This record gives sequence, C-alpha cells and structure tokens, in this order.
Amino acid sequence: MEFRELFPLWDRLSADEQRQISESLVYRRFDKGTLIHDGSADCSGLMMVAEGQLRAFILSEDGREISIYRLFERDVCLFSASCVFRSIQFSVHVEAEKDSGVWMIPAELYHRLMERSAALANYTNELMASRFSEVMWLMEQILWKSFDKRLAACLLEESAIAEGMRLTLTHEQIARHLGTAREVVTRMLRYFSDEGMVRLSRGSVELADEKRLRALAEA
Amino acid sequence: MEFRELFPLWDRLSADEQRQISESLVYRRFDKGTLIHDGSADCSGLMMVAEGQLRAFILSEDGREISIYRLFERDVCLFSASCVFRSIQFSVHVEAEKDSGVWMIPAELYHRLMERSAALANYTNELMASRFSEVMWLMEQILWKSFDKRLAACLLEESAIAEGMRLTLTHEQIARHLGTAREVVTRMLRYFSDEGMVRLSRGSVELADEKRLRALAEA
Repeated sequence: MEFRELFPLWDRLSADEQRQISESLVYRRFDKGTLIHDGSADCSGLMMVAEGQLRAFILSEDGREISIYRLFERDVCLFSASCVFRSIQFSVHVEAEKDSGVWMIPAELYHRLMERSAALANYTNELMASRFSEVMWLMEQILWKSFDKRLAACLLEESAIAEGMRLTLTHEQIARHLGTAREVVTRMLRYFSDEGMVRLSRGSVELADEKRLRALAEA
Repeated sequence: MEFRELFPLWDRLSADEQRQISESLVYRRFDKGTLIHDGSADCSGLMMVAEGQLRAFILSEDGREISIYRLFERDVCLFSASCVFRSIQFSVHVEAEKDSGVWMIPAELYHRLMERSAALANYTNELMASRFSEVMWLMEQILWKSFDKRLAACLLEESAIAEGMRLTLTHEQIARHLGTAREVVTRMLRYFSDEGMVRLSRGSVELADEKRLRALAEA
C-alpha cells in the first residue's frame, strides 16, 4: 500500500512536507528472519510496516533476547530512528518475523519536520506513549506474574496473531520471546500438555483448551 | 524557585502561552511520605519539582511496589498528567520522598498548548524518551540481573581491602575490575546512590548501607 494511505497524519502535512517525504521515502523488502535494525549503532530511519510482521526485542550482553513488541501493518517503529531523540539511551533490535515490506523515512528528515510541526511531534508522542505502555505491561508481567501465566498469555497472543490454534513455534523461539531458557519452556509446556491445555508435536504447539489457558493467563 | 527559571522552554513560549501558564500554575508543598499521584485514576497535571525529591513507582495488584525512577529539582513528571496522552495505558504512582515543593500545570491546559506548539510537543517527547530509557534500563536489570550484584560484591570486596567504607576508586577503575564500560558503572552507582546505599563524590565511593549491599550481592 502507498505510504500516504498508511500514514494517518498525511493529510495534516503541508504540501511541502508531503513533497519532502515523498522524495526521500524508500520501500524495502525483508525476508523472514532478516535483522532489520541492529540496536543503537544504527539509525536507519522511521519505519512504517506496509506488509508482513516485525518483532522488536532487546538483547543481553550474553546474547539472551526478549521480545518487547510486535509491529503489524500500519505500525510505525520509532526506535529504528532513535537518534531523533537525544534522550533515548537504550537499544532495540528489529527483525522481520514474516516476509515484510517497509516504508522508510530518513531519520534526519523526520527530525527536521518534527521540530517544526506540532502535529507530527504530537503524533510521535502518542507513538512513543503507546510503545512505552507495551513495555510497562511487559515489565509488570515479568515482575509480578509467574511463568505459567506468562506462557499461557504468550500462547494466546501468538494464536491471535496466527489466527489459529496451531502455532508453528519451537520451544527455543518461545523462550526467546519470553526471555528465558528453552528448558524452562519445555518443562512448562509438558505440564500444560499433561493438563490437556496444549498438544505438542515437533516444531508446533496446538492450543487444546483455550478457555483454561485464558483463565490461567488472566488469573 | 520560580517556574520560569526552572522550565527550560519558558523563553520559547509566546507571551500569550506564558500568560496562560502563569495564570493557572499552582505551587504545592508535600510532606515527606505523601502520596502525590495515585495511578491512572487521577490526572492532577504536569508536575515540575522545585525542591525536594519524588519517587515514581508501579504497584502490583497485591500491593508490591517497584521504584521506576526518581525526580529531583527541575525534573518534570509527565505521568501525573497521563490523561494528556491517549496511548498511555499504565499507572504510575508518585510520592514525596523528601519534603518537596512542586509546580503544577493543569493537564488540560498543557494538552491544549502542546497541541499547537511544536516546541512544547518536542520537549514533551524528550521527557517521555528519557523516562522510557530509565524504564528500559530497569527492565534490563531485572531481566538479566547480574550487574547490580556484581557491582555490590565488588564494592564490598574493595571495602574489605581498604579496611574502610570510603573507597578512593574512579568509576573507570571499577569498570575495569568488572570488565564493563564506565557508563554502565556510573549509571548503577547513581542508582545505588539514589537508593541510599552509597555516597558519591569526586574520585570516591562511600558505602552508606553495607547491610543492603551485602543482601544485594548475596541475593
């Protein structure tokens, strides 16, 4: 889809702002699994997902990951342009979780437009507030929810994304989403399986009792 | 101190904007221990610390707390005006950690001014980015949790070596001991200092609460 159809603020930009964006917009395709943005080292620009699905995650020094949010069609990734904000002092990595197409606006141009446009700056504020909310939610999960609840919530979320009960996810992938070790996931999935809440097979997890999983996640 | 001396953006506001703020500004004093802002139920307004010290924290359903950041003189608390942002979906509580004096701008006025002023909206963006960074830092600590323990252990060891509580060590030296970057040490020491576990001065670190440091190191 065209950028102007995806970007909710397009009609509130001046003709000149629209022209500047149009002239420097780039459309890029990324194969599933590609690392699109690699932490703070890199300030690729603002990304708007046109198709596919991206995953934003943080990385520990010893290589452990935890997913912090997903980006779907029309979602905008601010942190691939984190150099726009002086005060951002953390690194987010972004990978294509499906084959994806992404509109990119150079960070420098976005910064320049935002400096002068209250509409764009307020839009950016709302984007940041909404990512902030996702991270706060995640932090509360990590702090206060036991792992069985987090895993149940994760399976339900993945099932909503996949629009089906059968998830083609390895234990390793789930462990990475949840920032834990594969063994921890395997053990809990076996418990879920014994309880009849999931059915396990090689490389996939099937939700067998959505109702109980939901009760657990929301307990 | 007067609001206009504390607020870095004052001179970039129009005379009319300055007048509107001056007319609705309120100065409030809070005794140490007072709960100033009570989660999302309450949208008191934007707060600027004129004197004292505030603590922002989140609260679990069963009443557990965790501090997410401290606010010192000149710091601004956005989340006491979280209704300004549609996308903020979490609750922050704020209490006075010392006797404090706070300038408050009504949320509705701030929202109205920010809608039209790119300068104010960009300033707010930076505030949010900087709180976001603090929360991400905290989350990484919680997730990968080891550096705080390592640093606490290192300080105790050095103190045993020095046979005293006052260590003449630079952050650079500690960083070298621990195989990390100086910035990482500085940040964690500031956190220890905010928590009252150490006292910092140029070229030295004083252990102020050995018992807590030991509990942390051995956790």
